[in-house]
Amino acid sequence: MYMFRNLCTGVSRITVRFGTRSMSISSSRSVDQLLSGRNDDHGGVIVEMSTEPVDAVVFGSLLRASILHWRQEGKKGVWIKVPIELVNLVEPAVKVSVFALLQSSCFGMLFHASLQEGFYFHHAEPKYLMLVYWIPETPSTIPVNATHRVGIGGFVMNEKKEVLVVQEKSGILRGTGVWKFPTGVVEEGEDICDAAVREVKEETGIDTKFVEILAFRQSHKSFFEKSDLFFVCLLQPLSFNIQPQESEIEAAQWMPFEEYTAQQFVQKNEVLKYVSDVCLSKREGKYSGFSPVPTTGSFSTTESYLYLNRHCLNSP
Amino acid sequence: MYMFRNLCTGVSRITVRFGTRSMSISSSRSVDQLLSGRNDDHGGVIVEMSTEPVDAVVFGSLLRASILHWRQEGKKGVWIKVPIELVNLVEPAVKVSVFALLQSSCFGMLFHASLQEGFYFHHAEPKYLMLVYWIPETPSTIPVNATHRVGIGGFVMNEKKEVLVVQEKSGILRGTGVWKFPTGVVEEGEDICDAAVREVKEETGIDTKFVEILAFRQSHKSFFEKSDLFFVCLLQPLSFNIQPQESEIEAAQWMPFEEYTAQQFVQKNEVLKYVSDVCLSKREGKYSGFSPVPTTGSFSTTESYLYLNRHCLNSP
Repeated sequence: MYMFRNLCTGVSRITVRFGTRSMSISSSRSVDQLLSGRNDDHGGVIVEMSTEPVDAVVFGSLLRASILHWRQEGKKGVWIKVPIELVNLVEPAVKVSVFALLQSSCFGMLFHASLQEGFYFHHAEPKYLMLVYWIPETPSTIPVNATHRVGIGGFVMNEKKEVLVVQEKSGILRGTGVWKFPTGVVEEGEDICDAAVREVKEETGIDTKFVEILAFRQSHKSFFEKSDLFFVCLLQPLSFNIQPQESEIEAAQWMPFEEYTAQQFVQKNEVLKYVSDVCLSKREGKYSGFSPVPTTGSFSTTESYLYLNRHCLNSP
Repeated sequence: MYMFRNLCTGVSRITVRFGTRSMSISSSRSVDQLLSGRNDDHGGVIVEMSTEPVDAVVFGSLLRASILHWRQEGKKGVWIKVPIELVNLVEPAVKVSVFALLQSSCFGMLFHASLQEGFYFHHAEPKYLMLVYWIPETPSTIPVNATHRVGIGGFVMNEKKEVLVVQEKSGILRGTGVWKFPTGVVEEGEDICDAAVREVKEETGIDTKFVEILAFRQSHKSFFEKSDLFFVCLLQPLSFNIQPQESEIEAAQWMPFEEYTAQQFVQKNEVLKYVSDVCLSKREGKYSGFSPVPTTGSFSTTESYLYLNRHCLNSP
């Protein structure tokens, strides 16, 4: 079907059928009866539904007509962002099937194509669901969904070589007496270096300056099918009076590094043992991790951090 | 409501109402009229629906009864994994509202509670949608969705100090004549080091051995609201005859490193310029990145890679 568009420019009429009904839309008059979307940079269309109520049957009809229109335009991926208020539109989008009768004016022949599959889920956040549809008959190049959650741990050492540790009120270490580094999750759109400073401040009240990433771990199936990237960050303390976060932290303190490392919990955990070795090596000035360099211009004008071993670079 | 469960252990009868109908379920008899789920490690329940057709009204009724049951059990988060075949169940789950009349046998009093909100979207993959519901009146501790996509670039240099570069058939560099490193997306459940080897093999036919991560970049809003982590990987070639991937690669070659770096595209892009500097420094034996160390035992028995600067560690 996709090729006919290029062969026959005189397509004059599209018949849209849904259920037992059918309606005829002249392609020149149909524009105001279509869903409005904006183009993306990859030959696709993005439709963002407002939260105004829409009837599911009306929507299904609009969607069929719109797909035929976008097909004619040579569009590839179609994205529909459905707010949770319009959850009634999810089923008609997934079940949409477009039967198109295209009458070619160049040959006077009738071509018939049936598209069996409707929209797929692409990703979801609490208040919306993103649906996607691939128009061409060529393999889909729809990008994959986000696959990783990102966490940080903050290694903060003061001038007395004491490390900042906490005991948590919930989670698997609750009530175990284990002292651990402050840890947390990187929020949407947050830089790793900012997340580390924020989490340490939230959990302990200590202000810090980000220094570098000492190591990171990638693990799988940490949360349903999703993976996890956990960055161990070195931070320099800028304040020293601890104020534990009431909701999450049972206790917090500056603890001699050796005492932290000597905990059974650390000694028996291969990852934590490695991280301790790294911190020890760092304390002795022998280790260099990755530090953030602000950059612009990698396919966009927004600033992003490049993390690299700056100690080894000739020109920092 | 959550507190009443602890006060009154003798709750004998739950009335479940939906629409204008109501049905009465004895709590002792209701078990086989509930959705079956498995417990998670955080006091929650996970319901995985099979693809067997279920009527939306029946499902809504089961869901209300099940929520009341889980409430009584003190459950917190409720997860429902809805396969796309059962898209008809999404609307009833989002719109579910539970009006519970709990008759307490300890005081003989009637408590009434109305839960206004139904399920939220949590995450979605092409073939399923994960819905979530937080039962307690305390703030939700439902973990966030995955926030990052992960990509890799493969820097492969042969003994003649030539670097492996490609020209792509699609994307923003198509037709520009720019030579770039092979790049790709880390698949679900895939290790970064394996992804780099796989992508280089797919795009160029060259077998490689993973050496280390030279640098990485975190950027935001790369794809709707999602962020991106891109790891620049150093790989050692194990074969040398290039076979470009027909579907994606226009051309591939071994190119003198200086020629690669001299490209306007590289010189004018701050990130690529830094990466070139890193590669140059590496070529001269002055740079150390993060190499993968297989580990087990960080809160699970599965193996995961810890990436760190092994050159700096006393005991590798």
